[in-house]
Order: sequence, then structure tokens, then C-alpha cells
Amino acid sequence: MDFTAETATEAVVESFRHTDDPRLREVLESLTRHLHDFVRDVGLSLEEWEQALAFLTAVGQKCDDTRQEFVLLSDVLGVSMLVETLSGAGEGTESTVLGPFHMTESPSRELGDSVDLLGTGRACVVSGRVLASDGTPLPGAELDVWQCNEEGFYDVQQPDVQPPGNGRGLFHADDQGRYWFRTVVPSPYPIPTDGPVGRLLDATGRHPYRPAHVHFIVKAKDHLPVTTHAFVADSPYIDSDAVFAVKSGLITDFAESYEERDAERFGVGVPFVHARFDLVLAPEASR
Amino acid sequence: MDFTAETATEAVVESFRHTDDPRLREVLESLTRHLHDFVRDVGLSLEEWEQALAFLTAVGQKCDDTRQEFVLLSDVLGVSMLVETLSGAGEGTESTVLGPFHMTESPSRELGDSVDLLGTGRACVVSGRVLASDGTPLPGAELDVWQCNEEGFYDVQQPDVQPPGNGRGLFHADDQGRYWFRTVVPSPYPIPTDGPVGRLLDATGRHPYRPAHVHFIVKAKDHLPVTTHAFVADSPYIDSDAVFAVKSGLITDFAESYEERDAERFGVGVPFVHARFDLVLAPEASR
Repeated sequence: MDFTAETATEAVVESFRHTDDPRLREVLESLTRHLHDFVRDVGLSLEEWEQALAFLTAVGQKCDDTRQEFVLLSDVLGVSMLVETLSGAGEGTESTVLGPFHMTESPSRELGDSVDLLGTGRACVVSGRVLASDGTPLPGAELDVWQCNEEGFYDVQQPDVQPPGNGRGLFHADDQGRYWFRTVVPSPYPIPTDGPVGRLLDATGRHPYRPAHVHFIVKAKDHLPVTTHAFVADSPYIDSDAVFAVKSGLITDFAESYEERDAERFGVGVPFVHARFDLVLAPEASR
Repeated sequence: MDFTAETATEAVVESFRHTDDPRLREVLESLTRHLHDFVRDVGLSLEEWEQALAFLTAVGQKCDDTRQEFVLLSDVLGVSMLVETLSGAGEGTESTVLGPFHMTESPSRELGDSVDLLGTGRACVVSGRVLASDGTPLPGAELDVWQCNEEGFYDVQQPDVQPPGNGRGLFHADDQGRYWFRTVVPSPYPIPTDGPVGRLLDATGRHPYRPAHVHFIVKAKDHLPVTTHAFVADSPYIDSDAVFAVKSGLITDFAESYEERDAERFGVGVPFVHARFDLVLAPEASR
């Protein structure tokens, strides 16, 4: 049978009929149908097809141990955020994108430690509680935290300036589910623009900036983990995140504090910047 | 505004509103809609998303000067053939996929030269005419030809065995639009399976074979170029080409010939294998 624009899709779908894994077959069949529909809808030309393959090849080749350009591409097309949203538990703290910088293991730290290994920034404390949906504290919950410095760079982007693990920490909540750590106030930053995704943003008149945020992955026994950010309220770009990750429930005041008792407990002087960010995990059974 | 599974697509489409190039904007908007529909339709999980990005990254990283794994991926998903079919002129010889092996320039050769630089195969002559749709010969038409050897490998796949340019030739039709060259009968062959695309075929129970064929790109002044194959009739896999490229009009007899006059003209002995393949180009105005 000849392959025509009309029969093309069924011929490819049919080729997957011997796939052992029924989920893989389902995903590939749907991918084939949507991909072919796209090609037909826009009438993709050979030149455009060549450009698209060259672009995707360049995206793959830009990836290395500290750079994941395909995650970036997924991010700027809103696919990462869509997948994250579809995976959300529906209760508890809202999830948002993982992003491309969770590529090294966060060093274990004690509550109250600073993730700012350089001590160059404005003193900031992030504190809060890890709770179940019903408000019960979750003692010993694991908090994996990572963020950029005050100039907007992650450790892996500045190996000559920042020691590995700067801005990162793996903490465990105390017996009342509380956590706290010292850091610097993160900065808005551009996603990396020196690769194909940067060229795409440039060609489409989009800025590459993300509003300031601290990343969290929080896990507790019998609960669904959550991957999220605390966004710095009033940060530039809070309404136009290049990766579509802002949810209003995640916007957090990073406010100047003169509370002497807090300052003493956290080991900082006054005034200091204090961000309070509670994390609520849904029970495992809720999904 | 929060990004939800429902508002996701419009938020991303809206982000492309400042794109200067209207065609780029159209393609990206359609891509976004179809890609998001796919993710929603299958309810893509985070684990599957990670697997997909790791797969695409591996595809990009498998590419080098002599290997184009993204073309292979496009081929086995029928996308290459769909694009080629949509681009077809609608008259003249049917087009088919470019394939991933047209990566080096074909050496210029004289009519009657052999593209088989090793002389190890069964003598075969491919001949025919390049014609306009109305049957007028197209003198001086350019024919870029490439094929694998009798073991199913292209020169670039066997740099230690085949000299560069083996199986390749750039010919020009004579003043009556005729062309002829010597070669070996190509073999069916598997597309490269040592990369991520091979793993995909394996996971889906698909064989990687293509029926035997000779590639052509034919160009003539004031006519649309055609990218096509002459498929060897009765080749294994003629009904299940891994890249969906077979069209019945391209199936060509590679028949044993005892014609002494032909043999003398072509500089071979009898019997020899003779494939006759005419190429018909549509006028430029037809698209």
C-alpha cells in the first residue's frame, strides 16, 4: 500500500501493533497522531523540517553534565509545567517545574545551617513547617533546597566563583515538622540563552527571565512528594515567567524583620530578611 | 494568572505574540497546541516526561558528522515521509525520503562510470531518461545518486572497508536526457540500531530493515527537483519498510539482461543486471 498524506498516520500507528508494553503503545500511537496532525495542519515544508531537525539536534548536543537544554525547551514551551500540573496531587502545596539545575546532589546540612557558602549576600532566613493536609506536622520530612545566588547564578553555572553545593542543602524537619536555614535572597535570572533555546526566545521576542525563587522538593513518609518553588513576592517578571511556573499560592513575602528573638534563634543580626513558607503534603492515598 | 491544565496552552501561545516572522509564529502556535494536546490526552507522567527528554537528548547526542539520529527518528515515525509527500509536486516521479546517508557530497562522474569503486559486486547498470511531465527530454539534468553496497552498508558506515564516495555519484544526463551508470545491486539493510532509535524499534517489536533501493536527487532547470528511490522489485521488506518510504510507482525491476548491444554500450559483459528507471520532473510553475 502506498503511503499518502491520508494513510500515513494509520500506517505508522499500525507499525506499533506488536509493542509489548501497552502504555508505551498508547503513548506512541497518540504521539504519532498528534505529530502528524501538526505536520499536516501547518503544511510543514522540507526546509522547515530540516531546520526543525537541526534545531532538535543542537538542543541535544548542548546537553552535558551541567546543562539540560531539552528540559529548557520543554520549560519554555510550557510542557514541563503542564506535566507537573497534571501530576499534582490536587491538595497540599501546589507543585511547579523542576527546572534544569537540579543536577547535582544537595549536601546534607543541619537545620539553621547556611546554604550561602560565600557569605557575600544579604542575610536571609527561610523557615516554615512541613504539614499533612489535615495540619498535622510531619517530623523528619526531607527538604531538598536549591537556589541561585544574588547575581542570579547557580553553583554549576559558576564553577570558578561558587564552590559546589553553594545554594543547595538537604535538610530534615525537626520533631515538630519545622525547618529553617540561612541563605541569601535569590535574584531573578535569565535561563541560559547561549544555546538553541535562547535563539528560539530571541526569534519570538520573548525575554528569558524567571522571577526570583527558591526550589524545594519535599518528601515525607506516607505522603506524596512535592516539587515546588517559593517565589519572592514583587520580584520582577513575577507576571511573565519564561517557563510559566508561577502559581499565586507559591508567592511568598521575603520581608525585612526586626524580631530579636527570631534573629537570635536563627543566628543572624537584625534586620534580616525572613521568608515564611509552609509546605503541605497530600497523603499517598489521595492519588 | 495561575497556569492550569486548562489555561496552559493559551498562556504559551500568547507568549509568542511578539514573533516577527508570521510563519514562525504560526508553526510554534500549532506545535504548542498539538504538543499540549498529546500530553493531556495520554496524561503524561513526570517519569514518562523524564524518560522522553532523556531519549531525545540521547538522539541528539548520537548525531555526528556521519550519523543523523534525529532524521532516523523522524523516519521511523513516518514524519519524514509525510513531509516529503506533502511537498510532492503532484505530477512527475513520486518523491520519497531523503534518509540519513546523504551527508557527504557525491563525487562528479561521467556517464557510464561505475560508482562501485571496489568491483566486488554483481555487475549492474542503472539507466533511464530524465523527462519533463510532457515527455520532453531534459538534457544536462543533474542526478545525485547514492546507495549501499551488496552487504547493505554505505561508505560512511564502513570507512575502513569502503573508500569515501563509494556508491555515490553526481551525473549529468546527455543531450537526449539519458543517463546510465554502473554499480552493484544494493542490498536490503537495517537502519542503524545501535542508538536510541534502535532501542525504540526493539521496544515496539519493529524490524529495522529497508528494502533494497538506489537513492536519487534529480534537478533540471525550470523544473522542481525530486528526491526519490528506485526500489528493487521483490526485495525483502518491500511491504514493511521501516521508514514507510515505498511507493508502488518506484518499484523497479533489476532484471538479468543478455542484451549484447546494451552490454557493449555500458561496458559490461553478459549477463548483467539492468534496471531501467525514468525520472519525470514537474515544471516549476506547478507548485
